[in-house]
Amino acid sequence: MAKLVQCVPNFSEGRDQKVIDLLVSTASEVPGVTLVDHSSDTSHNRSVFTLVGSPEGIGEAAFRLCKAASENIDMTKHSGEHPRMGATDVIPLIPVKDCTSEECVEVCKKLAKRINDELGIPIFLYEDACTSEERRNLANVRKGQFEGMAEKLLLEDWAPDFGERKIHPTAGVTAVGVRFPLIAYNVNLGTSDIEIANKIAKVVRSSSGGFKYCKGIGVMLEDRNIAQVSMNMVNYGGTPLYRVFEVIRMEAERWGVPIIGSEIVGQTPVKALTDCAEYYLKLEAFDYDTQVLENYLMG
Amino acid sequence: MAKLVQCVPNFSEGRDQKVIDLLVSTASEVPGVTLVDHSSDTSHNRSVFTLVGSPEGIGEAAFRLCKAASENIDMTKHSGEHPRMGATDVIPLIPVKDCTSEECVEVCKKLAKRINDELGIPIFLYEDACTSEERRNLANVRKGQFEGMAEKLLLEDWAPDFGERKIHPTAGVTAVGVRFPLIAYNVNLGTSDIEIANKIAKVVRSSSGGFKYCKGIGVMLEDRNIAQVSMNMVNYGGTPLYRVFEVIRMEAERWGVPIIGSEIVGQTPVKALTDCAEYYLKLEAFDYDTQVLENYLMG
Repeated sequence: MAKLVQCVPNFSEGRDQKVIDLLVSTASEVPGVTLVDHSSDTSHNRSVFTLVGSPEGIGEAAFRLCKAASENIDMTKHSGEHPRMGATDVIPLIPVKDCTSEECVEVCKKLAKRINDELGIPIFLYEDACTSEERRNLANVRKGQFEGMAEKLLLEDWAPDFGERKIHPTAGVTAVGVRFPLIAYNVNLGTSDIEIANKIAKVVRSSSGGFKYCKGIGVMLEDRNIAQVSMNMVNYGGTPLYRVFEVIRMEAERWGVPIIGSEIVGQTPVKALTDCAEYYLKLEAFDYDTQVLENYLMG
Repeated sequence: MAKLVQCVPNFSEGRDQKVIDLLVSTASEVPGVTLVDHSSDTSHNRSVFTLVGSPEGIGEAAFRLCKAASENIDMTKHSGEHPRMGATDVIPLIPVKDCTSEECVEVCKKLAKRINDELGIPIFLYEDACTSEERRNLANVRKGQFEGMAEKLLLEDWAPDFGERKIHPTAGVTAVGVRFPLIAYNVNLGTSDIEIANKIAKVVRSSSGGFKYCKGIGVMLEDRNIAQVSMNMVNYGGTPLYRVFEVIRMEAERWGVPIIGSEIVGQTPVKALTDCAEYYLKLEAFDYDTQVLENYLMG
């Protein structure tokens, strides 16, 4: 059966359409790899691409993208709201079908070595590919951002996993890792008070006592004048969407604020949604593997 | 691309394990056809099989099953709660992938002719294969059940589509049809009062003023001593599961009765569940085709 890997590289360019177009065409040129989605955010000045394909195809496409980004993005001139440390900021690989996390780690290390050998960009491995627990969390790795990275690489604990203790002058540093499928999930509140979104984000996110597999911040949607709890659900099996949604509803009620909607940005494994249907419909003894008809058609 | 048809034959035997086992082995012997699921209900005294495969394979497997059922099930001795008129009570064909309803109707007519020619069982065509509007609805066709069928076939309007006006002495009559994917969906109530389930079934089913694509009856689950609203959702796009679930909840509340669970019997297209998640999570602008990752993997 065909192995399938998803890859979601993040690039530090969300404004210059010429550069974005070049990355899109680069992402589409490797046979057996599909560019599923890409979105660019001007205030973050960042683009997120989603590719799926064979392990080898994904390794090749990710390398070509990283090369194109290093030739066209100058981090010394970059500004944007999202934390970042490199032209290609981060390349996560996600096992999707008939492929283990270990196999993805192999692809990941080959890719990291090639990026360093051929492009001279130092690489950190993170999450399931990490070489020490300190490097598991991307936020730890990226701390200091591009501007502080030259200094950080000289610290005893922060030699890159591939490459010298020296940033690429314009492309910075790149993190390559393997992780569980991540769902970008946002809940919109019927209030323009960002403080309420901040308080609720603190309730649901792991770092301040919330759900283990939830990261979250409050953000203001200026165009709609509403506050949003913006989350990354890093393991929808361990922390399901509906549970976070209901706790947000509960906490928002305390402030007299309703939930007016939610959104999934980009892709989701379908099971993250069927788990929600199971909960709300109180489905008894539902067996996803055998009862979902499409599971018999995917080979 | 490979054409795929689903077939969900219903047999009037849910108690005798030897007969059920024989049907299972018969269902598994045609190459290119997968027995996806089968379930037997002792109070209904009925078994429901789900097969998927090529149009030709499905036609062959359905014939062999019908033959085995006619040789091993005696309708003159059958009792059970579910309405029924034949050893093989009904054979619906469902176009699943790269296959039109019209193609399924062709398969259906060939199958009907062969069953009548070789086994002597009279056949009614129903739903999208029907020859008159009166025969579209299976409940109309089956009215009178096995016991009344000999007489019914003599009525002016009720000559079978294939065969003489005479039931098979032990195998009765079989309906063969083509339809949209059907979801067998049951909601369990926290009461042993069957009358409440009956009243609620009347509220939600089309025939008495409820939802257009919902059929339903109240049934008693003797083993659990609870009443159930047992439904067939014949078009989950037009009448979604969550809407029926919420109306049942609303009506049950009037009687002080809670919903204690629900169940999907057999398979469901996954979209019937993601539609529920969309509703409950208030998902904004969710695009099933592009945002469900697995949709990129099914070729």
